[in-house]
Amino acid sequence: MDKKICIAIDAMGGENAPYKNIEGISYFCKKNKDKSDYFFNVFGDEQKVNNELKKYNIPKSCIKIFHTNSVVSDNETPLTAVKTSKNSSMWNSVYSQVKSESDISLSAGNTGVLLVISRMILKTINGVSKPALAGLWPNLKGMNIVLDLGANIECDEKNLIEFSEMGSALYKALFPKEKAKVALLNVGSEEIKGTETLKKAYTNLKNISRNEDFDFNGYIEGNRITDGESNVIITDGFTGNIALKTAEGTAKFITDNLKLSLKENIFSKFSLLFSYFSLKKFKEKLDPRKFNGAIFLGLNGPVVKSHGSTDSLGFYHSIDLCYNIVKGNLMSKIKDNLSHLNDSKI
Amino acid sequence: MDKKICIAIDAMGGENAPYKNIEGISYFCKKNKDKSDYFFNVFGDEQKVNNELKKYNIPKSCIKIFHTNSVVSDNETPLTAVKTSKNSSMWNSVYSQVKSESDISLSAGNTGVLLVISRMILKTINGVSKPALAGLWPNLKGMNIVLDLGANIECDEKNLIEFSEMGSALYKALFPKEKAKVALLNVGSEEIKGTETLKKAYTNLKNISRNEDFDFNGYIEGNRITDGESNVIITDGFTGNIALKTAEGTAKFITDNLKLSLKENIFSKFSLLFSYFSLKKFKEKLDPRKFNGAIFLGLNGPVVKSHGSTDSLGFYHSIDLCYNIVKGNLMSKIKDNLSHLNDSKI
Repeated sequence: MDKKICIAIDAMGGENAPYKNIEGISYFCKKNKDKSDYFFNVFGDEQKVNNELKKYNIPKSCIKIFHTNSVVSDNETPLTAVKTSKNSSMWNSVYSQVKSESDISLSAGNTGVLLVISRMILKTINGVSKPALAGLWPNLKGMNIVLDLGANIECDEKNLIEFSEMGSALYKALFPKEKAKVALLNVGSEEIKGTETLKKAYTNLKNISRNEDFDFNGYIEGNRITDGESNVIITDGFTGNIALKTAEGTAKFITDNLKLSLKENIFSKFSLLFSYFSLKKFKEKLDPRKFNGAIFLGLNGPVVKSHGSTDSLGFYHSIDLCYNIVKGNLMSKIKDNLSHLNDSKI
Repeated sequence: MDKKICIAIDAMGGENAPYKNIEGISYFCKKNKDKSDYFFNVFGDEQKVNNELKKYNIPKSCIKIFHTNSVVSDNETPLTAVKTSKNSSMWNSVYSQVKSESDISLSAGNTGVLLVISRMILKTINGVSKPALAGLWPNLKGMNIVLDLGANIECDEKNLIEFSEMGSALYKALFPKEKAKVALLNVGSEEIKGTETLKKAYTNLKNISRNEDFDFNGYIEGNRITDGESNVIITDGFTGNIALKTAEGTAKFITDNLKLSLKENIFSKFSLLFSYFSLKKFKEKLDPRKFNGAIFLGLNGPVVKSHGSTDSLGFYHSIDLCYNIVKGNLMSKIKDNLSHLNDSKI
């Protein structure tokens, strides 16, 4: 029998835990009932987890519960949590990767604490200067990987180059039939634009892209993130975080205005009868829960962070992401890409 | 008779010039036919401008043409343009402010060149370390002023504080009945988040805001730019440019997807019959042409940059913005706000 894909689940992290976490697992099992290549190591309060498990028909052969007796709260700072979190569901789910019990771990808990303890437990990959947080971002032709989304407020060219290699590895793990196309986010597309750091990264990436890990498309501006010409968008954690959240805010602003317009009078309300299914499909296509899950790249093991406030469906999508990351051999792809970087002596 | 508001128009800048520039003026005159407090100094090729003017019913009493025999091209770099542009429509329209012929100037031409020659001709206000490019950005309750949108790739805390005072002055000039509410764009809303520059600016702005030029709302994240709780959003030119363009790209991505959905089948097409007016209003409300015009703040005279690719209606909105900036006494408000900054010895 082939080794199963083992996913460690922090069952106590995020709003409405462990309810949404366990329901998320049940969605995954239902959608993948013809498969038997996955297994869940679930970390949390055994009684609470079992109470939730009773509600669903999750095969016992694909799940194991590990009792933990504390939870990392949302208010905890990374500094205090490192000392106090060793019995927590979050710590133990990440730690199960060190013990080779799990291939990946998923938490919807406190982001800052998750980043710090993941780094402590899994350690940074040899040769990587800073790990980064990568996210999915839809574009007109499919999906982008964007990083860094906030793990590193300030980045130098070495970081940006490593992000390009790691982001391309993630892209190829998730979309094996596509070619990774890297672009640096900048305030203009001409070579002379941007900071000194960006200019140095640009020159290096032009050389590195010859090793065929990815195509290098140069600089792109914010309005081209979604055009699909590039699919691995590289930036520092400050800019990436602002861009992602600005896009989220803009999407909400526009759909809120659209909703108001379509409910403003009897005619527009009547039109909803006919456009119902089309608008539902439109909503589903851009449903942020489908892109839920930021991937912490650059450690000796992948860690996925789900939005704390997402629901069971959003959590399911993060589980699905974990499954595809391991199935796509992310870790060996990252190491492979990074070795090319060492070859080219950047 | 009161002094008229004199607007210098670079008639040759931008796509489809001078057609859109002159039609933009004609829209303004039509919408303001009950007023006589404005005057246009139009700079460009006299023959081409006159050919356009013939098409419209613009009162001769409100317009004067100044012949110029060169145009700054879109491909020109600021460096070369400074030497070669002295006979251009752009140079002469800005220069008319020095000769006190105009109160403000408007161009849809090459942004980089406009910023450089405006700075050369008008000089930076005494005490301002860097001028900034400010833009309008709709929010749920009305309008934001956001700056810097790209004039300065890197900014220190002194720049951000000056941007806050100048942005608040612009807000009060355009929306005299409202209170300016400043926020710093950051990757989190807690005091400990962000770069050292942002933390220093935060501490200073908390003190400065006591002088009542504005309320200080602290940090906001990208997803809250449009919520209307703050209305003067302060950031460096790199981040501001990326945020603005990401918002533009996201808005286009969503409306493109919506259009596709509403045309995908016979039912959804039928629904358009009933939602036509509501969707038209929705589209009009968020029409980017309404927010066309970035304001160059911090010089001894205001300069407005229209999008190069906008049409006559977009150019009209930039003219309207120019009119309201002068009517709202922007320059005296900026100097007033900056003097408070000197009082508090930041």
